[in-house]
Amino acid sequence: MGRIILPTFLFRNRITMQPRLARYLPILEWGRDYRGETLVSDLVAAIIVTIMLIPQSLAYAMLAGLPPVVGLYASMAPLVVYALFGTSRTLAVGPVAVISLMTAAAAGQVAAQGTADYIAAALVLAFLSGLILVVMGLLRLGALANLLSHPVISGFITAAGLIIAASQLGHLLGIRTSGHTLVEIALSFAETIASLNLVTAALGLPALAFLFWVRKGFKPLLLKLGLPPRAADLVARTGPIIAIVATTAATAGLALADHGVRIVGEIPTSLPPLTLPLFDAELWLQLAAPALFLSLIGFVESVSVAKTLAAKRRQRIRPDQELIGLGAANVAASMTGGYPVTGGFARSVVNFDAGAETPAAGAFTAIGIGVAALTLTPWLYYLPNATLAATIIVAVLSLVDLGAISRTWSYSKRDGSAMLLTIGMTLVAGVEVGVTAGVGLSILLFLHKASRPHVAVVGLVPGTQHFRNILRHDVLTSPQVLTMRIDESLTFTNAGWLEETVTDRVAAEPEVRHVVLMCSAVNEIDHSALETLEALNQTLEASGVHLHLSEVKGPVMDRLKRSHFLDALTGNVFLSQYDALAALAPELVADEAAGKSKG
Amino acid sequence: MGRIILPTFLFRNRITMQPRLARYLPILEWGRDYRGETLVSDLVAAIIVTIMLIPQSLAYAMLAGLPPVVGLYASMAPLVVYALFGTSRTLAVGPVAVISLMTAAAAGQVAAQGTADYIAAALVLAFLSGLILVVMGLLRLGALANLLSHPVISGFITAAGLIIAASQLGHLLGIRTSGHTLVEIALSFAETIASLNLVTAALGLPALAFLFWVRKGFKPLLLKLGLPPRAADLVARTGPIIAIVATTAATAGLALADHGVRIVGEIPTSLPPLTLPLFDAELWLQLAAPALFLSLIGFVESVSVAKTLAAKRRQRIRPDQELIGLGAANVAASMTGGYPVTGGFARSVVNFDAGAETPAAGAFTAIGIGVAALTLTPWLYYLPNATLAATIIVAVLSLVDLGAISRTWSYSKRDGSAMLLTIGMTLVAGVEVGVTAGVGLSILLFLHKASRPHVAVVGLVPGTQHFRNILRHDVLTSPQVLTMRIDESLTFTNAGWLEETVTDRVAAEPEVRHVVLMCSAVNEIDHSALETLEALNQTLEASGVHLHLSEVKGPVMDRLKRSHFLDALTGNVFLSQYDALAALAPELVADEAAGKSKG
Repeated sequence: MGRIILPTFLFRNRITMQPRLARYLPILEWGRDYRGETLVSDLVAAIIVTIMLIPQSLAYAMLAGLPPVVGLYASMAPLVVYALFGTSRTLAVGPVAVISLMTAAAAGQVAAQGTADYIAAALVLAFLSGLILVVMGLLRLGALANLLSHPVISGFITAAGLIIAASQLGHLLGIRTSGHTLVEIALSFAETIASLNLVTAALGLPALAFLFWVRKGFKPLLLKLGLPPRAADLVARTGPIIAIVATTAATAGLALADHGVRIVGEIPTSLPPLTLPLFDAELWLQLAAPALFLSLIGFVESVSVAKTLAAKRRQRIRPDQELIGLGAANVAASMTGGYPVTGGFARSVVNFDAGAETPAAGAFTAIGIGVAALTLTPWLYYLPNATLAATIIVAVLSLVDLGAISRTWSYSKRDGSAMLLTIGMTLVAGVEVGVTAGVGLSILLFLHKASRPHVAVVGLVPGTQHFRNILRHDVLTSPQVLTMRIDESLTFTNAGWLEETVTDRVAAEPEVRHVVLMCSAVNEIDHSALETLEALNQTLEASGVHLHLSEVKGPVMDRLKRSHFLDALTGNVFLSQYDALAALAPELVADEAAGKSKG
Repeated sequence: MGRIILPTFLFRNRITMQPRLARYLPILEWGRDYRGETLVSDLVAAIIVTIMLIPQSLAYAMLAGLPPVVGLYASMAPLVVYALFGTSRTLAVGPVAVISLMTAAAAGQVAAQGTADYIAAALVLAFLSGLILVVMGLLRLGALANLLSHPVISGFITAAGLIIAASQLGHLLGIRTSGHTLVEIALSFAETIASLNLVTAALGLPALAFLFWVRKGFKPLLLKLGLPPRAADLVARTGPIIAIVATTAATAGLALADHGVRIVGEIPTSLPPLTLPLFDAELWLQLAAPALFLSLIGFVESVSVAKTLAAKRRQRIRPDQELIGLGAANVAASMTGGYPVTGGFARSVVNFDAGAETPAAGAFTAIGIGVAALTLTPWLYYLPNATLAATIIVAVLSLVDLGAISRTWSYSKRDGSAMLLTIGMTLVAGVEVGVTAGVGLSILLFLHKASRPHVAVVGLVPGTQHFRNILRHDVLTSPQVLTMRIDESLTFTNAGWLEETVTDRVAAEPEVRHVVLMCSAVNEIDHSALETLEALNQTLEASGVHLHLSEVKGPVMDRLKRSHFLDALTGNVFLSQYDALAALAPELVADEAAGKSKG
């Protein structure tokens, strides 16, 4: 076969060299090298992830206020589609806790839980958020995710974890709480706690305790019992399955449903149906903002775990293609009876540790879930909701990181306050308000910081051609020449500050006749800064002072030449600051040369 | 008298040394040095500005949809109060065109023009915007004004000028147009043009032509007639007064009001009344957002002209105190029957050119307007609205700068698109939407730019201890050491990009064992960037690569020491990049030394 084999280097690192199709369909790349041993690794990982995903998919669907089967549907087609379009080799896509909470909050605004409208809203949410992600990917807008700073994201995740845990407490105790903020849930809890069902609690609380123990003590016990580490790991992951089997058996055997224990009930035994999201303009408008939040949060979470895992094996992910992969997965969810999905943190780590080598592991997981949907669902009839609630609580409490607040605060008050605001607003006013407030504050604080650029008045270091801060070094200066080194790009955020700084300084030093702005660190002068420089040039001229520039970078100079600034400039543009000083204060440079020859 | 005389230097330049009271009452500072010749200069300037302000105050009140007398009221107390609190020596405060347009748009949302509610809304607007400005000043939030980049402001002013001119065309032709966007006004114009009043047009259009001619041809003519320049300047400024006298006389003498020419009518002959803004929570909420926009736009315009004029005389203005000065002026306007005011561009320049030396000139202008209000108003009964409309059109068309669009666009596509969006949205959807869209786009583009920091892979310049970009210079590098110089602070905006860049590079160069981040230009590492570095450290470790830092600035290092990052760092923090290379690739440095000794 005369196939030309391109070095894989080209595929991995020179994006512009990639054949267009492989760029958008990464499977064409990894699929070519697929071998027998890869298949074995992927299959083993898929089995382990499937065992984790069965209870999680049911539980997260419940958290989203949807029938359990929707969780199973969301764990099939989206995984296969992500395997085609995603760039991460090990990301495990599917229902996750935070996105399920956001789905519940958004769908709850337009319909009541348990209605067909509610399920339709979840489909529309998945479709819209898929659309948003794909469009962002095609427009290469992945960088938008940068707006969500770490303190905001981590504060949001902590707050969401607390809300989710609180929302599941009711299920654990057999009461019906409601609400999407901690305040609402707490009020609802206080109202309903009197009607708590002791049988449910007697089932749910031990299940919770068992699952917590599984997290900490099960694997060490298995190791102590002599199991090899890998087997111990695998068996330890079956903890939730054990809890489900035990509580389901108890509920069925003791007919606990007759004593008020709420159970999952009948789950349709079927592969996903083909569905079409409702094309209802008003509904779309109502869900557009929540879908945007959901997409961004899901993407940021997913891409950060994907990046971490890829780097461990010196692989790379392409964020813009990830947008397309996750977007396509969500569109697939909306067409197969699912709800919004993204890459989950815990399952991805397990998938990675279990040895998954390609996205095919995800597709095999989907097959595993399909088998489960066709064979296991009758056995889940008596599964108590309380058990699912316990698995959710155990899963999400690991997301809650209250220690991060003090760590962040002690590192930076700005970051700490953005985090606190995000947590506070999310707990009190809900997920969208929380994220918006946090992002808004981060941006304002960032712009505020950017409005005061680092500027130093510099002088000549004797015996050299170097210039250093006059406050920190013993340097030569002329009273008639004020030289300021600007350590950042000049933009609308800091142009005003620069103008004030220069004019204040000139007003304070009446001897000054020349101002030199040393632009060695200026990568950009935007139009606001250009106009500010023009104004500065004029006002300095009016008070008899010349404005000069030095060490202007090439691209910045090219742009300045396109304006009329250089014509109006009262001074010169010097190639180096030393040239500037030689021209404007020749006595300094001469003294220096004399001093040198003397010394 | 044993008064200790502090050098004025202390007052002007060392803010922290200023007595607290003088800081908030600048009059205590300039008032001490007030002399006879200052008084004469200020009086002359005040007379000239008063002549300009009489027709403008009436016209802008009409533009704001308010009775003409409100314009006179807004030209008294606010000027006196600004003289007490403002830091600009030459700013001429009072009604201005753009703020009047914004007042009309905001008040029009809550009441109909001509009603008492409408006048009350204007008072509340003045009060709220005064309050916002004072609070911003006390909290030193003047930097918030930086958010309004030049392209956005200048685009907004151009669009507002076009809207204002369009809105006055109706007055000029004797028809009643309405609307606050160009689209609304154009539609209203098309509907009403059939009812145009020929007599009004016969009065208004020549007045407009005359005023345009006054701008261009009057002063040269006076100079040709032999008037000395200063006198010619003064007489030329009476152009609007001439137009007013002529058209008022014609309207009165020919009883044109009976032919449908709308006239100003009775203006109460009185000093300003004491008024209290309505304390109505709902109204305040409705007007809060418009008041915020109005304050910011007014402040930005005002402070930019104040800065320019101050710098020409090596004086300085303090933006945060300017907020207090303008805020107090607006509160004064709300308590004396006025409406929102700010520092006007044209009048301030005239005030400056006429020789005003202190804010006392503003107070004298207020007295001049007071005299006019008590004596001239009966003479203005027959003043046609068309004449006022003509003065507005001539004044605002000088604000319209369509050439700025192409200048800005050719300099920078980013700035140009922010300007175009602002103009387009303002014309089509109104002032608030326009400004919001422009500011939003500027910030997004700024953050997008900030998300791709300038990073260079560097190597050792042979024979030196300097490091330069490997793409541009012939430098020494080791295949095992990857050194990246980061040219900007590391924050949430660019942390993700840095991580991708480093991991991509490491994935592409399997020989790399050490990554050195050269931080000589990094002024800050925020918490997002810290966590990214931690993650990068971990993932590099997993693939057998050590992470090092070099040339970390003192404050940045202090902060890093407060985190656990340095404990986890797999590599070292080197004082200089040369030290790093000497430790990690000693052969390079040794070769170099050998080469040197050879050479």
